[in-house]
Amino acid sequence: MIHNMEKLREDSLKYGPLCVGLDTDPSYLPAPLLKVLGSPAEAILAYNKEIIKRVAAEKSACCFKIQIAYYEAMGIEGLKAYVETIKAVHEAGFLAISDIKRGDIADTAKAYARAHFSGEFESDIITINPYMGFDTLKPFTEYCAPLTKESKLASGSKGIFVLLRTSNPGMTDIEQQELKSGGRVLDRTGAELKRIGDEFKAFYPEQKCSPVGAVVGCTEESDARLLRDAYPDTFFLIPGYGAQGGAARIAATLLDKAGGTVNSSRGILCAWKKAPELAEKVESGNLCLKEISDAAGAACLAAKEDLLGAKKELGL
Amino acid sequence: MIHNMEKLREDSLKYGPLCVGLDTDPSYLPAPLLKVLGSPAEAILAYNKEIIKRVAAEKSACCFKIQIAYYEAMGIEGLKAYVETIKAVHEAGFLAISDIKRGDIADTAKAYARAHFSGEFESDIITINPYMGFDTLKPFTEYCAPLTKESKLASGSKGIFVLLRTSNPGMTDIEQQELKSGGRVLDRTGAELKRIGDEFKAFYPEQKCSPVGAVVGCTEESDARLLRDAYPDTFFLIPGYGAQGGAARIAATLLDKAGGTVNSSRGILCAWKKAPELAEKVESGNLCLKEISDAAGAACLAAKEDLLGAKKELGL
Repeated sequence: MIHNMEKLREDSLKYGPLCVGLDTDPSYLPAPLLKVLGSPAEAILAYNKEIIKRVAAEKSACCFKIQIAYYEAMGIEGLKAYVETIKAVHEAGFLAISDIKRGDIADTAKAYARAHFSGEFESDIITINPYMGFDTLKPFTEYCAPLTKESKLASGSKGIFVLLRTSNPGMTDIEQQELKSGGRVLDRTGAELKRIGDEFKAFYPEQKCSPVGAVVGCTEESDARLLRDAYPDTFFLIPGYGAQGGAARIAATLLDKAGGTVNSSRGILCAWKKAPELAEKVESGNLCLKEISDAAGAACLAAKEDLLGAKKELGL
Repeated sequence: MIHNMEKLREDSLKYGPLCVGLDTDPSYLPAPLLKVLGSPAEAILAYNKEIIKRVAAEKSACCFKIQIAYYEAMGIEGLKAYVETIKAVHEAGFLAISDIKRGDIADTAKAYARAHFSGEFESDIITINPYMGFDTLKPFTEYCAPLTKESKLASGSKGIFVLLRTSNPGMTDIEQQELKSGGRVLDRTGAELKRIGDEFKAFYPEQKCSPVGAVVGCTEESDARLLRDAYPDTFFLIPGYGAQGGAARIAATLLDKAGGTVNSSRGILCAWKKAPELAEKVESGNLCLKEISDAAGAACLAAKEDLLGAKKELGL
């Protein structure tokens, strides 16, 4: 039995490293179209489904990352669209990464793990914030153990991505701080992820990566090689490419060894805004969903090519 | 116009420092009663409403903290109970603290702020995780500015509690780490909260605390006085009292200066399990909701008295 992170690793080698970020905000659709598609939550869901279908047909990405914040912002109806989006991702044969960045202690962490690894919001891999301490990871890593008949959990073999080196300027405030005892805060977190990964090797002797991955942004070249070499068995979720200003070359460095998946959200979802051939239709308010998802689909293919090209250039 | 944190400070002086934590899990109700009350989410909501009514009648607490993880764990129906719980807290005249511990960057943080400071999930004060950096706080603090006619926000004058020193053993892993540049990670976060608080003084010259509060657990005596003195204008949300093993005396130290509110969740919600007079009814499966909330109500009064007693003993 393989865990979801290993499945994702295999998919990233098969379909390329792109992860399509469904951080879908109603403002990412032109206003006239938004009106036609029903409520904002319905519009978002329709857009997501079109993109998922498109990516499935063109094999331009290996997974989808769903940023729950955008759905929470639309209340109960938004979260229904979140549930339907995960379902659509699964129906198209992809793994879903739920970008929830939860983090809490003891029974509360257990409740979050239950919330996102079982029941209505069940996802395959979730993102976790380790700030409150490493005891907060355990309720989530318990779901990463193999799913056996004896297992008490409804669903095992899950994966988590723990925040390690994020892609925002503020990452210097805490993550990047140098510790008196040596290394940075993020190195301390990394060492713990490595320790957990080593523990999991007994459960998953044949698999090339740990079910516990790390979020590593592709915004700084010097860090990328260091982190890639420090954690050779850790699969990375890589934000900061495209709209956030990251570079394909840094991402490609992070794709070495256990590999990773490179997220692009706005660069894909809002590709229609930058397509010269659509400018006239945007102007006149006549852009339809098909044209918007055509632009998104083309952006996926271009991003995949860009990333694979950068990888090749580095000889990886 | 006063902000929600100042309102909460005033309420804590009027009604005592207790914050009732509605971390309501179905397992906190006896199984036979759970069956009678409908779905788990309906049962939880019924229990919450009883406790809120009780606390309102007896003025035994100043606010309610709703831990969203437990509601998320029940899916869409759970989140509907979350919405109804906030509504019930408001109808009883209390402020609601939503313990959501969200933290993310840029547009995603904006989406979370929108999600929990407006619309269906709108709350008065929310908890925030600062790990990704101080730029992640801005979208939330924008809602803390005074609500004016010119304000572009639907709802201003909100408050946030930022995680500073939590009450779990793992808080030593990151929060408590000593930095090369001096101080601990948590001192760095604290300094930023102080800076933001000072900025807000221009908006709220008459108010005794900043709209940006801090989560400070009452699990270590030596820290309590240091943190209280370091941040005299910061109102504290104080976990770790009661079921988590904290002590009233440490909490009382933290209640000095700008003050704070002391959370108790399981100690109140599960008080019926420890009431000797209910043991027989528990055994026979005949415990009713009224008896359970009687026990919870008595636990609130006892906690309030305990905390006020400890405060008096310290001469505060």
